[in-house]
Amino acid sequence: MSIKNAFYAQSGGVTAVINASAAGVIETARQHSGKIGTVYAGRNGIIGALTEDLIDTSLESATDIARLKHTPSGAFGSCRYKLKSVETHKEQYERLIEVFKAHNIGYFFYNGGGDSADTCYKVAQLSETMGYPIQAIHVPKTVDNDLPITDCCPGFGSVAKYVATSIREAGYDVASMSKTSTKVFILEVMGRHAGWITAACGLAAEAEGEGPHILLFPEIEFDEAAFLAKVKAAVEKYDHCVIGVSEGIKNKDGKFLSETGLKDAFGHAQLGGVAPTIAQLVKDKLGYKYHWAVADYLQRAARHIASKTDVEQAYALGKAAVEMALAGKNSVMPAIRRLNDSPYQWDIVEAPLSKVANVEKFMPRDFITPDGFHITDACRRYLSPLIEGEDYPPFKNGLPNYVRLQNRLITKKLPEFNV
Amino acid sequence: MSIKNAFYAQSGGVTAVINASAAGVIETARQHSGKIGTVYAGRNGIIGALTEDLIDTSLESATDIARLKHTPSGAFGSCRYKLKSVETHKEQYERLIEVFKAHNIGYFFYNGGGDSADTCYKVAQLSETMGYPIQAIHVPKTVDNDLPITDCCPGFGSVAKYVATSIREAGYDVASMSKTSTKVFILEVMGRHAGWITAACGLAAEAEGEGPHILLFPEIEFDEAAFLAKVKAAVEKYDHCVIGVSEGIKNKDGKFLSETGLKDAFGHAQLGGVAPTIAQLVKDKLGYKYHWAVADYLQRAARHIASKTDVEQAYALGKAAVEMALAGKNSVMPAIRRLNDSPYQWDIVEAPLSKVANVEKFMPRDFITPDGFHITDACRRYLSPLIEGEDYPPFKNGLPNYVRLQNRLITKKLPEFNV
Repeated sequence: MSIKNAFYAQSGGVTAVINASAAGVIETARQHSGKIGTVYAGRNGIIGALTEDLIDTSLESATDIARLKHTPSGAFGSCRYKLKSVETHKEQYERLIEVFKAHNIGYFFYNGGGDSADTCYKVAQLSETMGYPIQAIHVPKTVDNDLPITDCCPGFGSVAKYVATSIREAGYDVASMSKTSTKVFILEVMGRHAGWITAACGLAAEAEGEGPHILLFPEIEFDEAAFLAKVKAAVEKYDHCVIGVSEGIKNKDGKFLSETGLKDAFGHAQLGGVAPTIAQLVKDKLGYKYHWAVADYLQRAARHIASKTDVEQAYALGKAAVEMALAGKNSVMPAIRRLNDSPYQWDIVEAPLSKVANVEKFMPRDFITPDGFHITDACRRYLSPLIEGEDYPPFKNGLPNYVRLQNRLITKKLPEFNV
Repeated sequence: MSIKNAFYAQSGGVTAVINASAAGVIETARQHSGKIGTVYAGRNGIIGALTEDLIDTSLESATDIARLKHTPSGAFGSCRYKLKSVETHKEQYERLIEVFKAHNIGYFFYNGGGDSADTCYKVAQLSETMGYPIQAIHVPKTVDNDLPITDCCPGFGSVAKYVATSIREAGYDVASMSKTSTKVFILEVMGRHAGWITAACGLAAEAEGEGPHILLFPEIEFDEAAFLAKVKAAVEKYDHCVIGVSEGIKNKDGKFLSETGLKDAFGHAQLGGVAPTIAQLVKDKLGYKYHWAVADYLQRAARHIASKTDVEQAYALGKAAVEMALAGKNSVMPAIRRLNDSPYQWDIVEAPLSKVANVEKFMPRDFITPDGFHITDACRRYLSPLIEGEDYPPFKNGLPNYVRLQNRLITKKLPEFNV
C-alpha cells in the first residue's frame, strides 16, 4: 500500500466540538504515518480543495492539535457551499481530481451535516464517475442532530447542555423577579426544521413548576390560542412562565413566524428573531411583562459548557473515520450506535453515505407530549445521556484559552480556479 | 446586648452570586447566635417586610444554605419596588416599624443596587425619623457595576466573565464562517446607563485581529457614519467583525436606539432589541450578512461560568455586613477596596450610605479609547482581576444542581397591609 495524503475539511455551521473531530482525524492519521502521509486541511471547507488553498497540518505541533479538543469553531475555516451535480458541473469535479492528483491525495474526510454528506457522497463516487481512486469518509457534525442512522450528531450534545443549562438559569432568575416585574421569559434556540435543540431545553424541567413550562417545536404547527392559554395557566399557577422556542416554528400556512427574507447559500431561509415576536404576542394578548433572549451563535460555540459525552464522541468519530479509511472503506460515515440508555453505552458502526446524504431525521412524534408543548419521558431518556459530563477548557486571564493554529498554506502547483 | 432578629432581603435585578451574599449573611449570623436570633428573609424583597411575608431561614439546613453559594437568582424572591419618601408615605414606614417590632427585628440587611441603597438608607434613618432603633446595612449587588466607592459590585464580575467568554466563542465561530456566510456578529449586553458590561466584552480581544473589534457604549453617542466605517475596515482586514453593544446606546438626540416604550417600576425605560437594529443597519448600508444574539437574563444568571473572584467577594460582603451590624454600625455598606491590580488584592471597607444612595458610577472616559469604540489598557487592568478564576457549580444529570429552599413563611401576627 503506497502512502497517500489525506484531505480534511469542515463544512456548514461550526460547533463547539468539530475541532475535536479534527483532532481525532489528525492524531490518528499521524499514528499511521506508514499509510497516510500529510493531512491537508481545506481552508474554508471544500472551497480550499477547489482553490488549492491547502493547510499543511503537519506543521502544527502535537500540543496545538491536542488543544483542538477544547477549542470551538472550525479551526481551518468552514463554508456553506454544496457541490452541484457531476452532470451539470463536471468542471468542479475535474478540478478536485486535478488538486487531489497534484498533492497525492487518496483520502477525503469531510466533517459536516446533511448537505455536506451529500458533497462527500459525490466525491466518494469519483472513482466510479471519473475514474479517480479516492476514499471519501464523512465525519458527522451538526448541532441540529438531524442526520439519520447515527444515535446523535457531534455538536448537538453540547448545544443541548448549553440551552438546558441556560434556560434553567434564566428560569431561576425570572422566578425571583415575577412578583413585581417579568412574568414571561422566552429563549429562542436554533433548529430550522428539527426540534432537537428545543427539546433539549425541556431537560431543565426536572421538578414540578420548574421551567421551561412551554416548548414550541418546528414540527408542531403554532396554535396561537392554545399557546396563550398555556402561558396564562403557567403564570396563574407559578406566577411566571419560561418558554423555549425554535427559530423555525411555523404558522398554519407553513410560513416561518419570523422570516427575514434572506436565504443562505443552500437556499434555506435565514431565520432569527421569533422570540421578540412571541414576546410581543404575549404582551399584547395577556399583558404580561416579558424578557427574551436569542442565543444564536453563543449556543453552538459554547465550548466552556460542552458535554463530555459529546466531546468524546466527536473525537472518536474522527478517529473512526481514519480507521475506516485504513480498512479500505469508501462512501461511509462512522455513526454512533446506542447500546444502553442508562448508563449510556455506545459504539461506532458504519453507515453507507447513500443512506445519509440529504436525509433529515425529525423528532419522533412520541418524543413530544400529546398537546405539543413539551417533551415526553421517552425523549428525556434519549436526550439525558447526551449532555452527561463536563469537559471544561483550560482558562487563562479568566477566559477560555483556545488555540489558533498557524494554518500555513502549501505552495500551489496549479493555475487559479474561480469558485 | 439583647438578642435581636435580623431581616434580610434581595432587591432589584438578581445576579449569579446574590445568593452567595445571602449565604454570607445567614452563615455569619448563625455563628453569632448569642447576638443575632433568627434571620428572616423578605419574600420578594422589601415587599415581604411590608406584607409580613417573612421566610424563616432557620428552618433551612446548613447544607442548603451553603448551596446558595453556587445557585444563581434570588432564592427568596426579589422586587423592583422603591420606598417613597418618609414625608409623603409615612404609612409605609410605620408599617415597617410595626412588622419589625412584632418580630423583634433590630438588623436590616438589604442586598441590592443603587435604588435599593436608597431604600436601605431610608430605613437606616428610622431611628432618627421615627424613633425605632434599627441598624440598616446595605449589601452591594448589581451587574451594572455602577455603585460608587466600592471597587466593583458583586454580580458584575460573573456577567463580565460570561460576556467575555461568550463573545470570544462567537468570535471564533464567525471567523470560521466568514468566507461564504456571516461577516458580522453582534452581541447585545445589559447596562442601561453604564458601559461596564460592554467594556467586559472587550477583554476577549487579547490578540491582534481577535474580536470584539467594536464596542458600542451607552456613554458614547452613537455615530452611525463612524461606526459603519469601522465595521467596513474590520471586515476588509479580518474578513469578519464582532461587535459588543450595550442595550442602552443612544443617538445624538439622546434617544435609546431601541426603546420599547415600556417603563419598569423605577421609571426606567425597558430596553432590548438594539442588536437587530444595528444588524439591519449593517445589512442595509454595507450589505454584509449578519448574525446577532441578545443574552438578556442568560448573562446575569450564568452561574455555571461565574467568576471565582466575584463569588468570593459576594460572600465576603454578606459576611462583612453582619460583622458591621455586630459592631454597632448603621447606615453603611461594606465596600471592596482594591489594594493591587495584579495579583489582585482587596479588602473590605465601610462606605456611608449617604454617599452611596442614588449615585451612579460611570465608566471613566479614559477607560474608553479616544475613538469611542474599544477599551484602553487602563480599563483592562481594572477589569481583568474581576473575572479571574472559575467556580463551577456541582452538576447532576448533566445540569447544574441548584438549590431551591423550602422558604417557609412564619405565622403572621399583624393585620393585612396592601402594597
